[in-house]
Amino acid sequence: MEELRAAIHVTSIVGFGIAVTMLVPAFANLAANEPSWTDFAGAAIMTAGGWAMIGIATAGARAKVSPRFGIILVNMLWWLIPLLSVAPLMIGPAKLTYVDAAFETVSGFTTTGSTVLTGLDSYDPGTLLWRSLIQWFGGTGMLSLGLVILPFLKIGGLQLFRMESSDRSEKVLPQFATIVKSITVIYVCLTLLCAIAYLLSGMSVFDAINHAMTTLSTGGYSTHDKSMGFFPNSSTLWVGSFFMLLGGMPFSLFVTLVFLRQKPRIDPQIIWYLVIVAGAAGLLFASRIGTGVYSLRSIAEDVFDVISVITTTGYAAGDYTLWGSLAVPLFFLLTFFGGCAGSTAGGLKIYRLIVLVEMVRSALREIVHPNGVFPVRYGKQRVDPAIFRSALVMSVSFAGVLAICTLVLGAQGNDLITSLSGSVTALANVGPGLGTEIGPSETFTTLPDSSKVTLAAAMIAGRLEIMVVLVLFMPLMWR
Amino acid sequence: MEELRAAIHVTSIVGFGIAVTMLVPAFANLAANEPSWTDFAGAAIMTAGGWAMIGIATAGARAKVSPRFGIILVNMLWWLIPLLSVAPLMIGPAKLTYVDAAFETVSGFTTTGSTVLTGLDSYDPGTLLWRSLIQWFGGTGMLSLGLVILPFLKIGGLQLFRMESSDRSEKVLPQFATIVKSITVIYVCLTLLCAIAYLLSGMSVFDAINHAMTTLSTGGYSTHDKSMGFFPNSSTLWVGSFFMLLGGMPFSLFVTLVFLRQKPRIDPQIIWYLVIVAGAAGLLFASRIGTGVYSLRSIAEDVFDVISVITTTGYAAGDYTLWGSLAVPLFFLLTFFGGCAGSTAGGLKIYRLIVLVEMVRSALREIVHPNGVFPVRYGKQRVDPAIFRSALVMSVSFAGVLAICTLVLGAQGNDLITSLSGSVTALANVGPGLGTEIGPSETFTTLPDSSKVTLAAAMIAGRLEIMVVLVLFMPLMWR
Repeated sequence: MEELRAAIHVTSIVGFGIAVTMLVPAFANLAANEPSWTDFAGAAIMTAGGWAMIGIATAGARAKVSPRFGIILVNMLWWLIPLLSVAPLMIGPAKLTYVDAAFETVSGFTTTGSTVLTGLDSYDPGTLLWRSLIQWFGGTGMLSLGLVILPFLKIGGLQLFRMESSDRSEKVLPQFATIVKSITVIYVCLTLLCAIAYLLSGMSVFDAINHAMTTLSTGGYSTHDKSMGFFPNSSTLWVGSFFMLLGGMPFSLFVTLVFLRQKPRIDPQIIWYLVIVAGAAGLLFASRIGTGVYSLRSIAEDVFDVISVITTTGYAAGDYTLWGSLAVPLFFLLTFFGGCAGSTAGGLKIYRLIVLVEMVRSALREIVHPNGVFPVRYGKQRVDPAIFRSALVMSVSFAGVLAICTLVLGAQGNDLITSLSGSVTALANVGPGLGTEIGPSETFTTLPDSSKVTLAAAMIAGRLEIMVVLVLFMPLMWR
Repeated sequence: MEELRAAIHVTSIVGFGIAVTMLVPAFANLAANEPSWTDFAGAAIMTAGGWAMIGIATAGARAKVSPRFGIILVNMLWWLIPLLSVAPLMIGPAKLTYVDAAFETVSGFTTTGSTVLTGLDSYDPGTLLWRSLIQWFGGTGMLSLGLVILPFLKIGGLQLFRMESSDRSEKVLPQFATIVKSITVIYVCLTLLCAIAYLLSGMSVFDAINHAMTTLSTGGYSTHDKSMGFFPNSSTLWVGSFFMLLGGMPFSLFVTLVFLRQKPRIDPQIIWYLVIVAGAAGLLFASRIGTGVYSLRSIAEDVFDVISVITTTGYAAGDYTLWGSLAVPLFFLLTFFGGCAGSTAGGLKIYRLIVLVEMVRSALREIVHPNGVFPVRYGKQRVDPAIFRSALVMSVSFAGVLAICTLVLGAQGNDLITSLSGSVTALANVGPGLGTEIGPSETFTTLPDSSKVTLAAAMIAGRLEIMVVLVLFMPLMWR
């Protein structure tokens, strides 16, 4: 199939680029006098070589820009690249099995942040840096996806946030390049600012670089087992909170502010995003006052952990399962929320929640006045029902896949809390789950391999807003 | 407000009728030589007297048949009657506190079946009979609601199942009476058949009568702590399975078969209902084979428990939390499902699940072929998008209220499993929850009073398909 070959060709170019960056951890370990630098160099050569051959084999394939091609391309990119970029964690000092390496790499590229590694503090810098790098790459991938590709495919109601009213034609490609370029500049600049701020808050240079990459991408990999709880200064938590909050905002806002120098229109999802964060952190702190165990740092921890979960980053500033009985259900629900559309965050996304609430309000009004007309609005904007419907459909698909995933994990021998919270955290790309096995102070290492495979697939499906993966199962797609 | 007074007047008539039936447990205890028969007689006099006074106070109030009046009436009926029919459980031998009596009575009228009573086997016949009676009344209430009232209010997409294409006018009342009469006849006959079948399977007369009433109403109150697990013959479980299955089917089907003597059109929800039951029971039995502990009776238990949960009855034939790791997530998910629209079952209802799946399929097709037209169908029928939307909106409201209810229960000090499963089981009117406190072999007695109040409110909201209660919070309703 010509379209598949063309998609694989594009994927091989991106994959090759990522393989080259495996030299970064090689240099890091060389600088740290770790002999394992050669492992990373080997991984880079091996992976880049593999992609080069795939690229040559698929050279010359051409495909018209079409929804079908878009779907195939996006799937190839997000399935093949993580699954074929496992060498650094297999040959490198981590010496993981294929399943573990694939789980960790998928969790990285999808910016989920669930990990199978323990004893992070004693790992070589190369391995830690590689984990941060793939999350950072995953973040750019997500931005392009949410701001350009999915709106073009009219998936999940994201067309509401299209940067420009582009029709579906070949001229989408140059636009794509321009938007991606300006987003990348902003992403790089914010990451640098974040690293400097972390440094000033007392982090080491190495920690600051790593955490800046996994903060802006809302990924959540840390260089310490205690995650952000490792750092004693509350200022570190405030820096993290601020930049995670930015990572969960629509990057089109920053593009408008910086490149177009326009006053952006008020986007209701941003307002609700901030309201929900403030409300949840307030509730959480009230719940901690109820336990009697709290301090000034608790406020920083509460704000940090709420933002960490709602932006689907997944850092932990402490074990919130100990923070009063409200904390666990609150974090469980926040896991679904996600940040704003057009950000690096996963989850259902705030604007979809707004759409759902508005639809219910409109339906309730119609019950009282059956002959009245109550259009669904997004803010003051009256929006095409088709867009709302596609936002709704994504939420329904999320629930359906969540149900199936929970059943599968249950059948694989996990308890209900592990199955349910593991599925949610994977599909929403958050990171930590709940319960004794995969809770915020645990890792995913004790799960059976079959469950790791299930969760890795859920992470990719979640990253692609479910629909892009589900559509592969439609016979119509292959006719 | 004239409409409110008229609604309370109608409620007082129904309430009076129910108060008179408190004489049934009085006679039962008189026959059993229990001196407590006077308590039930007293409860009847007290409650009937109270309703009579309310009735006199509101006499002469007139209201036009309108959606607003319908909403107020339904709310008055389902909130006031349970909350004011608590005397038998407070003055009678059970001697419950008001909160416990209200919880048990609400759980009865809403046919939920969650109980705060332990040691059922040693209770007086009057108390047990009263619990069965209110579930049986609740069942008729639900049938009228689902087949006549909610379709008239165009709530939750139920207008798809309207018995006749009635426009919103005064002539709805005689129709209402005709439909309710034929449904009642069928309901009474099925209950009698069920009681006879239970008797033949080896139950005592008293147990057969009680369980027949709580089977057809898909209520789930039992006269034994071990619920249906008390009865040694597998045939009892098969009888129960069969009649619960009927209770979860649309009663309009029986009306068409018996009174109109027509061949009913094939309703996709019935087919999927049977497919889901067979599939879930099969999965469950496979999971039990995996544990190595199973017998011939296991098949009866598996089928029985699946039907018990999907029809939102809530009997247990055994503790399914011990039946392999798949069982708990499977039952958790089945709790959401519910039976068919127009039955006595609660939950989301199968036809809404069909609508959700069809909407996703149609949206997926549109992604591949953006210019194609893929109407959403129910079976072969192409249905008005407004009806689908209102089915969808109910599901979204269910999820939203579930989230809030879980948070409230969490804040009241319950763990996540109790908060989440308790909320689902109450909103879907199933009965048992999960976990160490409210699991299938436990009761709700240990929960704090505040949580019992929360759950009772959730049961009523769930019984009224959420929307009828939510609409009370719309300012438009009161203008």
